[in-house]
Amino acid sequence: MEHWNHAHALLLAGGKGTRFWPLSREDHPKQLLRLFSDRPLVEETYQRILPVIPSERVQIATSTALSTRLMAMFPDIPASNLIVEPVPRNTAPCIAVAAQRSLRRDPDAILVVLPSDHYVADRAAFLEVLHAAVVHAGRREIVTLGVTPTHPETGYGYIRFGEFEEEPADPAGPPGPPPEVRHRARRIQAFVEKPDAETALSYLKAGRYLWNSGIFVFRADVILDKMRLHLPDLVAAVEDLARAVDEGASPDAIAAVWGRMPDISIDYGVMEKADGLVVIPASFGWSDVGSWRALTAFPTDDRDNFVHGRVVALESRGNVLYSTHGFLAVLGLDNTVVVVTRGAVLVCPVERTQDVKSLVAELKKRGLDELL
Amino acid sequence: MEHWNHAHALLLAGGKGTRFWPLSREDHPKQLLRLFSDRPLVEETYQRILPVIPSERVQIATSTALSTRLMAMFPDIPASNLIVEPVPRNTAPCIAVAAQRSLRRDPDAILVVLPSDHYVADRAAFLEVLHAAVVHAGRREIVTLGVTPTHPETGYGYIRFGEFEEEPADPAGPPGPPPEVRHRARRIQAFVEKPDAETALSYLKAGRYLWNSGIFVFRADVILDKMRLHLPDLVAAVEDLARAVDEGASPDAIAAVWGRMPDISIDYGVMEKADGLVVIPASFGWSDVGSWRALTAFPTDDRDNFVHGRVVALESRGNVLYSTHGFLAVLGLDNTVVVVTRGAVLVCPVERTQDVKSLVAELKKRGLDELL
Repeated sequence: MEHWNHAHALLLAGGKGTRFWPLSREDHPKQLLRLFSDRPLVEETYQRILPVIPSERVQIATSTALSTRLMAMFPDIPASNLIVEPVPRNTAPCIAVAAQRSLRRDPDAILVVLPSDHYVADRAAFLEVLHAAVVHAGRREIVTLGVTPTHPETGYGYIRFGEFEEEPADPAGPPGPPPEVRHRARRIQAFVEKPDAETALSYLKAGRYLWNSGIFVFRADVILDKMRLHLPDLVAAVEDLARAVDEGASPDAIAAVWGRMPDISIDYGVMEKADGLVVIPASFGWSDVGSWRALTAFPTDDRDNFVHGRVVALESRGNVLYSTHGFLAVLGLDNTVVVVTRGAVLVCPVERTQDVKSLVAELKKRGLDELL
Repeated sequence: MEHWNHAHALLLAGGKGTRFWPLSREDHPKQLLRLFSDRPLVEETYQRILPVIPSERVQIATSTALSTRLMAMFPDIPASNLIVEPVPRNTAPCIAVAAQRSLRRDPDAILVVLPSDHYVADRAAFLEVLHAAVVHAGRREIVTLGVTPTHPETGYGYIRFGEFEEEPADPAGPPGPPPEVRHRARRIQAFVEKPDAETALSYLKAGRYLWNSGIFVFRADVILDKMRLHLPDLVAAVEDLARAVDEGASPDAIAAVWGRMPDISIDYGVMEKADGLVVIPASFGWSDVGSWRALTAFPTDDRDNFVHGRVVALESRGNVLYSTHGFLAVLGLDNTVVVVTRGAVLVCPVERTQDVKSLVAELKKRGLDELL
């Protein structure tokens, strides 16, 4: 499948994230957590694409603080593939830099942009959809993966889609229906903000709304063209950055160039302004793992509990029971999150986990910095 | 107040107790827990009576396993005041031994029998009632302290009382109404088993039922006379034990004598059979601290939480939050027990804490002995 030959990946691994406290800490953000296996989420993301995109074409955007640990985690990825943000910026600058660098190596480069801290249950299904996306991107389309909703989730942004795209032909595809027939792209009509419960239910019933997975696929030259249109300052700064790196500029000079980049997401900066965007509806068991609650969608026992570590749960249902440090016993407990880590324990109802962020803010206010 | 001159105390500190797991362990039973202060419950019990009964008249009945630790905890109590049970027996044998030993030292000895793992909020009120009990006991009555119920508790045994006793005169009492006028003894009509919820409510409304505190006061010779009547084998064994100790018998020989004592409580063995028993109704903020739930009756913050250790509770109500090891944060949590100890954490609803015992049995069944 020669489409993969031009595919480059960008893992977005710069997030901080306090919503998984006490497992996530300031120096140990969500993408490093081993939530679903003994591998950090960022490593699972990397392993997920490795069958189709080789290490030397995987770039990782991250913070200065995390860059050393990520390089150690991925010895097969060339150090020059790391995009280190000296000042925290949003997704658009990282994607612009990655697109510019990919384009230098391959004028036909297709960039697959992947959040590094999401969950995918079915890798084969994921790769099949991704293949369809790469085919579409090869036709100069800007493609997003949209996840078919399984419940009226209020924590996700939605994408409303319209008619089918015309089918692309896949010259290298196998006989029988090519994957892209099963995963037909749709015109995007609108990106929609996180809805309230009632609206989310209406989206679910309407059948024309998908969860915005944050996974984008496009040709590098195409996204840079769009950015030149909508974010010209960003593209100028990215070109300055390339020059500075080529000339061996000092870290301070490089940081100064980063500092001039706009702090804006690809969603706001490009996607919601550009036209001709398509979405591929997909179902591969996806979650953005936005809070502890998200784990309840992937129970590990027959009483709807998500259990990790040394845990005994008696007569307990619908809990997230996560211990990295010592033994946890629960009895007659329902719909509760219990996280046991070295030095800090959290207990809260499942429906309150979106407020863990506020709890962390409160701990900071009380000067309990050693816990954060 | 010369009545105290004949008062001897017996602290019952032989209990094992699994209902405070994971704070209580097999080698660290409830009476050693620091639930309400930085002192173990047994030490609080000792300190509570120290203003009226000096150390040299305090006996402690306990197991072989705990005896060394208790001797270290109470250096002022003579080693010979320790009653060490080589084989676990119930309360009647310990009381018989203590009565026999007290009687040897003082023919008018009055024995105050105190569980060592209960909670008393108001020490002054407690001592005032105890004084009245000692006065009654001096008149050869068998006295129990009965706690006026504050709620329809199903976890306690009850005492149904009848008419007032005739008032004793207190020759050494201060001017004004002597304490025993405020704490008039009542004839006991019956000891009643733990009731169900409906019955407990009817007891509360009836106004003639008191909680059985397990605190007894009687002359040593009087209780031994009762035991000769109802438990003659026990009294014979106690006399054998005294002889064996006097003669410097081997530990094995002493254990053999203990082994011959009946395994029976003072309640079943004597109290429920004897007549002429009286109860003094009292209110001094009492709990037998039978399970984690009991702590909810003594909240430490203004949201009805019982909090111990490094805990932050946000928007949380009616919980027991107890940490001896590390930080505990709860958010939006109600009516839940969370206990954080080194190596083990327990979470369960307040209304399930009576089942912690079953949880511990389950852990034992699973071979998790290192946690018990």
